Amino acid sequence: MTSLNRRLFLKRSGIGLLPAFVPLSSLAADANKNKSAPPAAPIIKFFGDGEVYEPGDYLLELQKINSSNSITRDRYGAGGAVEALEKKMAEITGKEKAIFMPTGTMANQLALAVLSGENTKVFVQDTSHVYRDEADAAQSVFQKRLMPLAKGATFFTADQLQSAIENLKEEEVFKSGVGAVSIENPVRRTDERHVPLEEIKKISAWCRNNNIRLHLDGARIFIASGWTGVSVKEYASYFDTVYISLYKYFGASGGAVLCGPASVIDKMPHLVKIHGGTMYGNWANAAMALNRMEGFESRLKNAIAASVELFNELNKIPGIHISPLEGGTNTYSMVISKEIDMRKMNESLTKEFNIRIPRPDEKNQMLIAVNETILYQSTAYIVNAFTKSIK
Amino acid sequence: MTSLNRRLFLKRSGIGLLPAFVPLSSLAADANKNKSAPPAAPIIKFFGDGEVYEPGDYLLELQKINSSNSITRDRYGAGGAVEALEKKMAEITGKEKAIFMPTGTMANQLALAVLSGENTKVFVQDTSHVYRDEADAAQSVFQKRLMPLAKGATFFTADQLQSAIENLKEEEVFKSGVGAVSIENPVRRTDERHVPLEEIKKISAWCRNNNIRLHLDGARIFIASGWTGVSVKEYASYFDTVYISLYKYFGASGGAVLCGPASVIDKMPHLVKIHGGTMYGNWANAAMALNRMEGFESRLKNAIAASVELFNELNKIPGIHISPLEGGTNTYSMVISKEIDMRKMNESLTKEFNIRIPRPDEKNQMLIAVNETILYQSTAYIVNAFTKSIK
Amino acid sequence: MTSLNRRLFLKRSGIGLLPAFVPLSSLAADANKNKSAPPAAPIIKFFGDGEVYEPGDYLLELQKINSSNSITRDRYGAGGAVEALEKKMAEITGKEKAIFMPTGTMANQLALAVLSGENTKVFVQDTSHVYRDEADAAQSVFQKRLMPLAKGATFFTADQLQSAIENLKEEEVFKSGVGAVSIENPVRRTDERHVPLEEIKKISAWCRNNNIRLHLDGARIFIASGWTGVSVKEYASYFDTVYISLYKYFGASGGAVLCGPASVIDKMPHLVKIHGGTMYGNWANAAMALNRMEGFESRLKNAIAASVELFNELNKIPGIHISPLEGGTNTYSMVISKEIDMRKMNESLTKEFNIRIPRPDEKNQMLIAVNETILYQSTAYIVNAFTKSIK
Amino acid sequence: MTSLNRRLFLKRSGIGLLPAFVPLSSLAADANKNKSAPPAAPIIKFFGDGEVYEPGDYLLELQKINSSNSITRDRYGAGGAVEALEKKMAEITGKEKAIFMPTGTMANQLALAVLSGENTKVFVQDTSHVYRDEADAAQSVFQKRLMPLAKGATFFTADQLQSAIENLKEEEVFKSGVGAVSIENPVRRTDERHVPLEEIKKISAWCRNNNIRLHLDGARIFIASGWTGVSVKEYASYFDTVYISLYKYFGASGGAVLCGPASVIDKMPHLVKIHGGTMYGNWANAAMALNRMEGFESRLKNAIAASVELFNELNKIPGIHISPLEGGTNTYSMVISKEIDMRKMNESLTKEFNIRIPRPDEKNQMLIAVNETILYQSTAYIVNAFTKSIK
Repeated sequence: MTSLNRRLFLKRSGIGLLPAFVPLSSLAADANKNKSAPPAAPIIKFFGDGEVYEPGDYLLELQKINSSNSITRDRYGAGGAVEALEKKMAEITGKEKAIFMPTGTMANQLALAVLSGENTKVFVQDTSHVYRDEADAAQSVFQKRLMPLAKGATFFTADQLQSAIENLKEEEVFKSGVGAVSIENPVRRTDERHVPLEEIKKISAWCRNNNIRLHLDGARIFIASGWTGVSVKEYASYFDTVYISLYKYFGASGGAVLCGPASVIDKMPHLVKIHGGTMYGNWANAAMALNRMEGFESRLKNAIAASVELFNELNKIPGIHISPLEGGTNTYSMVISKEIDMRKMNESLTKEFNIRIPRPDEKNQMLIAVNETILYQSTAYIVNAFTKSIK
Repeated sequence: MTSLNRRLFLKRSGIGLLPAFVPLSSLAADANKNKSAPPAAPIIKFFGDGEVYEPGDYLLELQKINSSNSITRDRYGAGGAVEALEKKMAEITGKEKAIFMPTGTMANQLALAVLSGENTKVFVQDTSHVYRDEADAAQSVFQKRLMPLAKGATFFTADQLQSAIENLKEEEVFKSGVGAVSIENPVRRTDERHVPLEEIKKISAWCRNNNIRLHLDGARIFIASGWTGVSVKEYASYFDTVYISLYKYFGASGGAVLCGPASVIDKMPHLVKIHGGTMYGNWANAAMALNRMEGFESRLKNAIAASVELFNELNKIPGIHISPLEGGTNTYSMVISKEIDMRKMNESLTKEFNIRIPRPDEKNQMLIAVNETILYQSTAYIVNAFTKSIK
Repeated sequence: MTSLNRRLFLKRSGIGLLPAFVPLSSLAADANKNKSAPPAAPIIKFFGDGEVYEPGDYLLELQKINSSNSITRDRYGAGGAVEALEKKMAEITGKEKAIFMPTGTMANQLALAVLSGENTKVFVQDTSHVYRDEADAAQSVFQKRLMPLAKGATFFTADQLQSAIENLKEEEVFKSGVGAVSIENPVRRTDERHVPLEEIKKISAWCRNNNIRLHLDGARIFIASGWTGVSVKEYASYFDTVYISLYKYFGASGGAVLCGPASVIDKMPHLVKIHGGTMYGNWANAAMALNRMEGFESRLKNAIAASVELFNELNKIPGIHISPLEGGTNTYSMVISKEIDMRKMNESLTKEFNIRIPRPDEKNQMLIAVNETILYQSTAYIVNAFTKSIK
Repeated sequence: MTSLNRRLFLKRSGIGLLPAFVPLSSLAADANKNKSAPPAAPIIKFFGDGEVYEPGDYLLELQKINSSNSITRDRYGAGGAVEALEKKMAEITGKEKAIFMPTGTMANQLALAVLSGENTKVFVQDTSHVYRDEADAAQSVFQKRLMPLAKGATFFTADQLQSAIENLKEEEVFKSGVGAVSIENPVRRTDERHVPLEEIKKISAWCRNNNIRLHLDGARIFIASGWTGVSVKEYASYFDTVYISLYKYFGASGGAVLCGPASVIDKMPHLVKIHGGTMYGNWANAAMALNRMEGFESRLKNAIAASVELFNELNKIPGIHISPLEGGTNTYSMVISKEIDMRKMNESLTKEFNIRIPRPDEKNQMLIAVNETILYQSTAYIVNAFTKSIK
């Protein structure tokens, strides 16, 4: 039985023994290599935080999961795969409890609403998702005043936070109370740069001394962890609550998990309900995320190691320059010499080698991301692809 | 190729040509008939509004759909299978637009919030889902005052509504405005009894004359339609907005669709976002519901016809008495003679015949429901099952 | 010095030694008796809870207060006459703290908001001010669900409350929590009938056992106290918070005081501010109420005693029948025989005797109220007035 | 009859013919000159926006008003002196309607709530009252997101506003809508500096072109008007709504008036009610403000003219330097030479001359304000007072 045939067999039999990071669509494609026009190899994507499945692959992946370990339905978020995911997440973050929610927006907003209680003010990064990408939910639904710090920057320092809070005494007469501080890490709007651990430690210590509670928007905290080497559990330890996304790199089609102390999480089922988030069945997203989480950290480590080797090799090719961002995580700068025809290069990478890169700007610069898909092929394969494509 | 083998083939090949109402799990089971201990036939359920898939069957069903007509992903509810479902729902209800939402609670609450605008009061049935089963979301999140009518009853009359609104002039000095009226039809808390069409017409006419907007909580409106013969489109025509559930009888694991005029629906994406309901991928629920909706009405008609025949036959068996509820839809009263050993009957139906009935009360009475699963076997099979089981 | 001249002197000198219940306007009128056309005597009003000053009298009364004991300004509700009033009110109600607010609506709503905390449900009388006359503020601003009990009645019993709360377990699946119970006493919408003390005691005991907090809308609690003989302090002792109006019988042109534990009252300044109720100067209302409160209870006792004597005498006049309401306080039923010309009687009482009665219904019935103004003249004077006026 | 005696007579008789700007307390004091220890002259205050009455003076002033033109009570803000004030205010601002409210916070918040409607964002000055001094009411009660511009400055320019709004397209993905812009003028937190008319015109034109509504926090707009010469009506013409305070310089002990189109103002009675601001009697504040408004503008003109002459003379005294603020209105910088003993100077001004100045900082600098009280004495009197006091 050839490898391809074996894969085909596995797919058809539904007994998935494949490494979890190989998208099954590619296998399906492989299987039809000789017949179908489009190239059959799995696609390496130099963008995004992880594999995003097309429906067919998504179903196959879930089927594989179900074959090896029967998935149990939840009922309105209770029991089954959802409960299993929540337990796993609580364990990973070292928190007492965890709860599944339909969106990160709901997770962030409800966490901040509960943590801040009767207090109105919540400090956030100016560049954060909660401030810039949640459509003013904090103000219009949850009746909080977000106080942005560090305009345009990835993070605010403990000193900046402290000054801002202390200056309020002069800037405002009436006290509406500082209820919570939220830190997004890494920050999507600053190309997934991370917040330095030392600053997090200082902020956490200061907040705890001042009875201010702390939330981590850790939608992509596993990415920060992969690049900084700080464990998710350590990151989480500096915060009261942590939200982690299920669809950035855990393959689910949606969903979020919020972890924290029982005193906070136990209030959530009611709050999720009244905000219209208590879906009937959530097992598909939960089962997918739970399964993809398995081994994710080591796969990410492999991907990072592969990227170091790869970028080292690619930088030897005249006309290609790849460099890390300062304070960055999975995002790198790639500059292609103006002499290279980007349109042709792109076409070749896509059609000949199943490699996708982002659209460059007018200076032939682009930001590329490292994720699990880099492992679909060897360094040699990718270097060869770039070498051939720039000619 | 035997029938079983053919089915097995179809299942494995992923080319689904089977009638949509046959749950694939049964086929899977069939295929393994000789090996597995539990009986392999599809389960007839005399409760619930339709088939509810276990994960394995759910994935197979979606795979079948994807095989015949490739499912396209949505992105945060835009495009793909979600858009297709929205179009279909708008068409079925005769409304300008439709929008997918994660829950019926969100659909009901946002509809009433937008329809009532600056007005505070919303009239509802005392027994309605929006009044009793949405955890006071209307008051605590959407800042509306629900005004319950017709305590314990399925519906309020146009006269009752009119009196209640006119009495407010004496009962209250300050006007906070009547913004909307909501009608659930059929009503789950009154065993899915339906609201008479004539009353709906009168209420609708009066509301339109008085500039009061009208929402239909039609989570199960296809059930009402099946039993009353009034089309979903006609029901919808008396209301400004209609919500229909995707998981009561359309097989999805969750989700809802709200249909209405563009002036209302166009406000929803923002509102869904700020309430935390904008999930990344919703295609799985949308594709399932869209597919199950296909032919649902004729299958339901067949099920109703089959139930008439069946109950007629069952009533001939001494000790069994089945009768419709007054104003009822898919729910019937079944009384079993005290002389029959219910525990044994139940065990026989379940184990020998794959038929499930609800738990009876201490008088051997129970409410049973007619749904698509009645079509899994012939009338003769079911009559035989009951006959044998009561012995 | 004649009496009139003495009064004139007092008024002009600003040294008020007059009994507080004599409205100064009457004195002013008295003083001008010989010159001015309109009758000069103080007006006895058989409606309302107390004297309501016209601007001129209002200013004279405040001036008199200021002359004897210089009024000190508050600044945004802090200090001065406001602080003095708050202290007095806390003392009278036996509560830890008290706070001035612009309106009873604000006092009721903020009390219930704080008492109920994160819980949504607040039980109230169907006939209560908070349910019927606060324009749905509870729902539309304070995000509470008012649960009305005892339709049309003055009060609900402890049993009714208990049943209603216990029935919720069956009536509703999701718990949004019962946060507080509010009792208005006496009830304006039921003609100021009072809630029986025994029922209050039972409700209070049950609520305390069940960790439910209790608010008294005691806008007119001094009226209840006057007729039932239960002290304001005793009434207050069964509740966590008590609101008392400043303009029903304490002469202020507006304002309310909320009394309760420091844990509740200390939250109020911020809440009053954000709801727009922190007026700059409130000393005029505070000083007026504080002064009129002095001796109010004994004046009311006198008025009640006078009314007993008076109604006894009036009932001897053929054609007049006055009787107390069942469970009533300051409101009585007066029926005038159909043979009496009400229009003439009214005109005579008004023009000849400075006595005002409410407009009768078509059966010559009306509800009349006993208040301090009954003391402006002797029983003989009033009996004579009625006797002459019905001729 | 000596002047003093005449004044005493007037006071006692209640027939006020005195120029409105003379505080009656001074007259009362005058009357007792020979008996009472404290100096009897009216107090010139080099701080504050106008005369603030002590209770005794307040009552005398109202009595005077009532004597000349009988004050009529309002009932819950309807009718009487309140209606008269509203009409006058609408006329002065050139707006369709006006409404009395208990506080400026309520006026600002309700105006912005109604003007912005379903939109969430409201642009304001970073230094404005609505942003800094309303205890986050906008966010915590009215569910708006205030967007501060021009950190620390008196005003933002039309360009800054336009950029900020246009940048949102990039800074944020989801649109929550820009509903309104609020401008405070003059700005209390920047020492009552005013917003340049040209900038207001540009902002107004741009907002109207972009369908964004504009609110003027004109608590002290009469001050801006006095110094810039731009009429209140012209200022108001650039805005949809205008709020004007009744207690900064109109002598009332509290209250505010909001003026605007009927479409906005007609919504206010209900909103004031549900936010707890519908006080029973408001005639005292309304009558005071209405009366003090009469002739205010010409008195202010006189005060400004007097201040020009006075500061000119005072600047001739060695050791005193008074200068206007850039873009300022009624606030001036006064620097006293370090050689002068401030403590003694202050004591002399207070005790010998009835002149009060603010507390200086450690550099002997202070901000002084020009208001009506400067007219209580001649320039010569004040110059003499300073000359003598610095010795």
